[in-house]
Amino acid sequence: MDSVWYDGDAVGYLDQRALPRAVARERASSVDDVVEAIRTLAVRGAPAIGIFGAYGVALAASLHASDRAGYEAAAARIRAARPTAVNLAWAVDRVLAARGDELGEATRIHDEQRDVDRRIGEASVDLFPRGGNVLTHCNTGPIATGGDGTALGCFIAAHRAGKTLHIFVDETRPLLQGARLTMFELKEAGVPCTLIVDSAAAITMQRKDVRAVVVGADRIARNGDTANKIGTYGVAIAAAHHGIPFYVAAPRSTFDFALRSGDEIPIEERSPDEVRIAAEDEVYNPAFDVTPGRLITGFITEYGVVRAPYADAIPDLEHRPRIPLPVA
Amino acid sequence: MDSVWYDGDAVGYLDQRALPRAVARERASSVDDVVEAIRTLAVRGAPAIGIFGAYGVALAASLHASDRAGYEAAAARIRAARPTAVNLAWAVDRVLAARGDELGEATRIHDEQRDVDRRIGEASVDLFPRGGNVLTHCNTGPIATGGDGTALGCFIAAHRAGKTLHIFVDETRPLLQGARLTMFELKEAGVPCTLIVDSAAAITMQRKDVRAVVVGADRIARNGDTANKIGTYGVAIAAAHHGIPFYVAAPRSTFDFALRSGDEIPIEERSPDEVRIAAEDEVYNPAFDVTPGRLITGFITEYGVVRAPYADAIPDLEHRPRIPLPVA
Repeated sequence: MDSVWYDGDAVGYLDQRALPRAVARERASSVDDVVEAIRTLAVRGAPAIGIFGAYGVALAASLHASDRAGYEAAAARIRAARPTAVNLAWAVDRVLAARGDELGEATRIHDEQRDVDRRIGEASVDLFPRGGNVLTHCNTGPIATGGDGTALGCFIAAHRAGKTLHIFVDETRPLLQGARLTMFELKEAGVPCTLIVDSAAAITMQRKDVRAVVVGADRIARNGDTANKIGTYGVAIAAAHHGIPFYVAAPRSTFDFALRSGDEIPIEERSPDEVRIAAEDEVYNPAFDVTPGRLITGFITEYGVVRAPYADAIPDLEHRPRIPLPVA
Repeated sequence: MDSVWYDGDAVGYLDQRALPRAVARERASSVDDVVEAIRTLAVRGAPAIGIFGAYGVALAASLHASDRAGYEAAAARIRAARPTAVNLAWAVDRVLAARGDELGEATRIHDEQRDVDRRIGEASVDLFPRGGNVLTHCNTGPIATGGDGTALGCFIAAHRAGKTLHIFVDETRPLLQGARLTMFELKEAGVPCTLIVDSAAAITMQRKDVRAVVVGADRIARNGDTANKIGTYGVAIAAAHHGIPFYVAAPRSTFDFALRSGDEIPIEERSPDEVRIAAEDEVYNPAFDVTPGRLITGFITEYGVVRAPYADAIPDLEHRPRIPLPVA
C-alpha cells in the first residue's frame, strides 16, 4: 500500500483525512493541488510529506519545462506548504539540485525511504517469537513514511517471515492515530490486530501475554532518551513493570547527536480543544513525552538493533535532515 | 450540589446525560418517571441510584396511600429498573420495610451516604500537603454518590480545610467520565482543575510535581487488590515508578471480605462500539482493571486510613450491600 506515488502527469496520494471510513486515492495535477494536499493534512507524516513534495517538484518541472523562473517559484511554494516539516524542505532542495533529472531524484528519495524501512523491518525479525502478542502506540506505518513504516514495518516484516504476531493497538488520544490509521494499515497488510483504549495498555500486558512493545520515535537524544507521541512514556513504564521488552524503531535520521539528553527536547503543547468538552476547561495537552533511555531495551534501526549510548553503533551522518517534532 | 433530592411531590435529579453542556434539574413526579430516569442513565452511580430509588419508593407510597398492592407493585418496578444495581434493590427493600415512614427512611439512606462521604473526606485531609498537584481518574464525586463523593470528596474536604490543591483529571476513555463529570463537579466545588488525556498521566507525574494520586474503587479484595475503572492500574504503576503515594478512597461497602484476591474479581468487557471507528475492527474493551494491593499506599475509608490486609481495621458489616461492578 503506497500513500504517495507518481502518476504520469500527476502526483497520486491517499487522502488520510478520509481514513478509515473511505480509501480515497486522489491525484494532484497542479502545483496548487500539491500545496493544498500538504496544507490540509491530506498527506501527513514527515517522510511521506517529503516524498510527496519531491514528486510535486518533479511535476512542477514538467509543467514549467521551458520556464525556469516559474519552476523555481512553484518549488518555493511547495517548500513552504508546511514550514515546520524539515523533511519537506530537504526533499525539495534535493530535487531542485537535480537539474534535468527531477523525477529520477524524487524516485530515489522514495526508494531510499523504502530501503530504510525494509532494513528496519529485517533488523527486527529475530526479536520476535514465532507467535504471540505485541503492543504498539500511535501510527508508524506506510501511510506516514511512504515505505513499510518503522514499528509497523517491523510487524509487516515479521508477518512476511511467517511469524503469527497479533498486535494490540493503542487508540492514541487525542487524535486517534492508532484507531484511525494503524488499525487500517495492519488490516491492509493482513496482520491480526485488536484496538484498545490507551489506558487499557497495562491490563493488556498483565492479562494478554504481551511479548514485546514496539513504538516509533520523533527524536532520540544521545543518551537514548526518546521523544514520541504522548503516552509512549506510560507504556514504557508499564512494560518495565511487567518485564516486557520495549523497543523503539527509528531510522538514523531520528537520532540527534547534538542533544545530550531528553531534557533538551522541547515538548509541543497543542490546542485544549483537542481534549476538552466544556469550552472553559483548563487543559494540559502535550503532544509528545520523553521516555528515559534506561526504559528502552533497544533501538531497531537500518543499521541493526543498537542500544544507548548508540554513538559507536550508527554513523553520525550530518547531511541527513534532523527530523523536528512533527505536527500530528 | 445534590444529584438527587426529594421535592415535595416529586423526586428531583440532575440529568447526567446533559452534562457538562447543560445543568438540567428535572422532576420525576410519577413512578414511570422514576423508572425511566434510572433506566436511561439520567441518574447513574451506584449510591446515587440507591438514594434516588429510595425517594422513588417514598413517592410511590404517597401516590398509593390507600393501595398497598399498587404501592408494592410500584416499588417492585423501581427495584427492577436496573437489575445489576445492588444498591438499588437494597435501598428499595429498606424503604419498603419502613411502613408508614417511607420518606424518613429514604432520607436516612441519603444522610448515611452523606455522612460516609464526609468521614472519608475528613480522614484524608492530613494526607495532603498545604498545596500542590494531585491526580485522579474517572468520576467519584457528588453526582455518583449523592454525598461529596469518595476521591472527589477528599478534594472537596481539603479545599474546605483551606488547602490549595490543583487536580489533574484523566479524561477516562472510553466514556469520558473524567472530562464530562469530574471536571464539572470540581468547578462546581471551586477546586482548581486541569483536564488531561489518560495517556498524559505519566508525563504529568514526571513534570508537574504531582504529590498524590487518589482514585475510587468498585470492589476491594481482602488482600487489597482493587477493581476500579479501566486505566487505574496503569496510573498506579506510573505513580509507583515516580514514588508518588497512591490512595484508594472507598466506603466500607466496597470492601469484599469474601474475595481472597483480585483474581476472583470478574472483569466486565463492554461493547466494541465504545472504542472502534471502523465497524469491523476487533476491540478489547475491559470496563475495569485490578490494581494489586502492593501498589496502593492506603485506603481512605469512613473508619480512617487503613492498609491491606485491612480486616482488623474496619468492621465486616454483613448487612451492608456488596457493591457489584457497576455499569458505566
